[in-house]
Amino acid sequence: MAQPPPDLLATRHARVRTALGREGLDALVVLHQPNIRYLTGFAGSTAIVILAPDELVLVTDGRYVTEVETRVAPGCPGLRLVKVDPTYDATLAAFLRGFDVPRVGFESAHLTVKRFEALTAALRDTPSRRAGALIPAERLVEAARIRKDAVELETLRRAGALISAVARKVLGGVRAGQREWEVAADIDDRIRRGGFERPAFDTIVASGPNGALPHARPGERRLEPGDLVVLDFGGVYDGYCVDITRTVSVGTPGVEARRVYDAVAAAQLAAVGAVQPSAAVTDVDEAARAVLEAHGLGSAFSHATGHGLGLEIHEEPRVGPRRADIPGVPPAGRDDRLEPGVVFTVEPGAYLPGFGGVRIEDDVVVTESGVDWLTDVPRELLVV
Amino acid sequence: MAQPPPDLLATRHARVRTALGREGLDALVVLHQPNIRYLTGFAGSTAIVILAPDELVLVTDGRYVTEVETRVAPGCPGLRLVKVDPTYDATLAAFLRGFDVPRVGFESAHLTVKRFEALTAALRDTPSRRAGALIPAERLVEAARIRKDAVELETLRRAGALISAVARKVLGGVRAGQREWEVAADIDDRIRRGGFERPAFDTIVASGPNGALPHARPGERRLEPGDLVVLDFGGVYDGYCVDITRTVSVGTPGVEARRVYDAVAAAQLAAVGAVQPSAAVTDVDEAARAVLEAHGLGSAFSHATGHGLGLEIHEEPRVGPRRADIPGVPPAGRDDRLEPGVVFTVEPGAYLPGFGGVRIEDDVVVTESGVDWLTDVPRELLVV
Repeated sequence: MAQPPPDLLATRHARVRTALGREGLDALVVLHQPNIRYLTGFAGSTAIVILAPDELVLVTDGRYVTEVETRVAPGCPGLRLVKVDPTYDATLAAFLRGFDVPRVGFESAHLTVKRFEALTAALRDTPSRRAGALIPAERLVEAARIRKDAVELETLRRAGALISAVARKVLGGVRAGQREWEVAADIDDRIRRGGFERPAFDTIVASGPNGALPHARPGERRLEPGDLVVLDFGGVYDGYCVDITRTVSVGTPGVEARRVYDAVAAAQLAAVGAVQPSAAVTDVDEAARAVLEAHGLGSAFSHATGHGLGLEIHEEPRVGPRRADIPGVPPAGRDDRLEPGVVFTVEPGAYLPGFGGVRIEDDVVVTESGVDWLTDVPRELLVV
Repeated sequence: MAQPPPDLLATRHARVRTALGREGLDALVVLHQPNIRYLTGFAGSTAIVILAPDELVLVTDGRYVTEVETRVAPGCPGLRLVKVDPTYDATLAAFLRGFDVPRVGFESAHLTVKRFEALTAALRDTPSRRAGALIPAERLVEAARIRKDAVELETLRRAGALISAVARKVLGGVRAGQREWEVAADIDDRIRRGGFERPAFDTIVASGPNGALPHARPGERRLEPGDLVVLDFGGVYDGYCVDITRTVSVGTPGVEARRVYDAVAAAQLAAVGAVQPSAAVTDVDEAARAVLEAHGLGSAFSHATGHGLGLEIHEEPRVGPRRADIPGVPPAGRDDRLEPGVVFTVEPGAYLPGFGGVRIEDDVVVTESGVDWLTDVPRELLVV
């Protein structure tokens, strides 16, 4: 758990305060743990942050007080620790009662109705803050997190190299006769021994017809000659997530397997080729989709091309289609433009019920001049 | 993923409908995934259920439609599938607009303010349902889940036997010189190979002074002669969670280590001895706490004695103290009484800064006549 340097944290605070100003807010109650980690370096499971005009208040409980006092607070500009007494929300309410700042926002996507009602009730009798004075706000920290800073990029590059090393070992060990869950257990063990805190999500090993389900769970099925096998896994390294997918062939692939694989591989290259500063995320998706459609696989590509990576395994941007007419794939909600420092997956796939599936996924970062791959594993169809 | 038998699901529905009636509600929008699984057997990651007077509506997306049609719906009385179009909340709003039931509750602890506001806005212009007609509700399904039924108990007993087998192998493999994270990786691998879907939480391996932190994360520290090492881990088996902790001594324990261990072991036995139908959960906690206080370790026991287990790793009941004067340990919120079929952990501990910690944890079930242990691993101090 490396603490981000104070100057980078100060820059993060400044960017979010600027966003607050645009929304007419003076302060923000931050409730989402990845947002709290981004602003402070605090890596515990539970805390509340109030980003105020002149300070940053971190509310946490006895489990984490020593860590905050010795590691987090000394490296986080303007941080003040408030200890929970007796509960988080009571402590937050007590703080807000004495908080002399007019327009306070809160992360409405990260507070439940139950907690909001209790908080509102606790503030109702405060003369200086009438009921309802807390203002719902959205995406203020998330928007700042899209463009990674220097320390984040260094972490993600290192994580990409580590997951690539894991993937090369994993791919070298896949054999006919193994059960899906055994392969998944091997992968998870290699992730843990490969320098990661934990797998970033439930590892997918989908063999033969199971590969037609993009989110298949590893089961009892044994890998058989003639199968395509989709292996999708990731790891968390110093809080940051990376994610990779390869599809292998058990024994010599058939003509159809080869055709589908080559189309997906070409779609991925086309998508990565479309990545550059100021490109729209929807252009990246359309580049992959056009290749698959040209191969008659348009309807077999039933998800978005990629998703942002960082302190969460799925974060902004969503690299999805502009079009609203693709069954099962919601269009990208906004016309996001890529910028240097944006990190995301590029993972087109094709899923054919009864036959199986192919997905190829790498992680990339937008640079000043184009794109860099964070993962580095052979992309040719591996025959095991 | 075994589907619960239809008659048990019908009983679960009836219990929750009775609870709804007590609250003056006619239907409930269920948003919490473990609650949805409990009511339907649906094990996917995303769905919404509306428990109506005469049916149970399951809203889910294309990823899960086949599973629901072939496995879940045939075994779940009154289930009707509604496919997401285009988003979950739009589908829910469309359903509620045509839903001719007056008093509809929703799980306010599982809906964010952002989603609630969007849903309220979508319903505002519906003549039959004015804004605000959705009624916050709490703990209606959770309360039903406290007392496990026959199929749940069978699953939990099997899971307890499996985690005990894992624990015996793990304890036999701990050696001086291993790093904490290496031991944790071994444990996680054995959990996966021992019949579990995944670890139930981040495995804890806390050696020497690190053991003084109840939620320590496994790090680079090597196990040294003279250490006490706390090993806390669990697994998910067919959706149900079990949880076990043992503390071992690296080399011959010192006098203080032996004294603390024996006190915690006696506290655990006292707590389990207090378990019987109609006992208050606070009595179980007090039984453990009294033993530790008699050994001068009262202030070293800085958490509750246990927590319920089931579809979640932490669920009701919270087996905590009645007293409000224990630093860091909130009192149990209600005077819960034990009943046959309630499953929970019993895990007293003692944490001494600079020295280390001891925790011993087993899972138990309340029976008609007393208590059964679900886990079965030697409880004497193991010297490795």
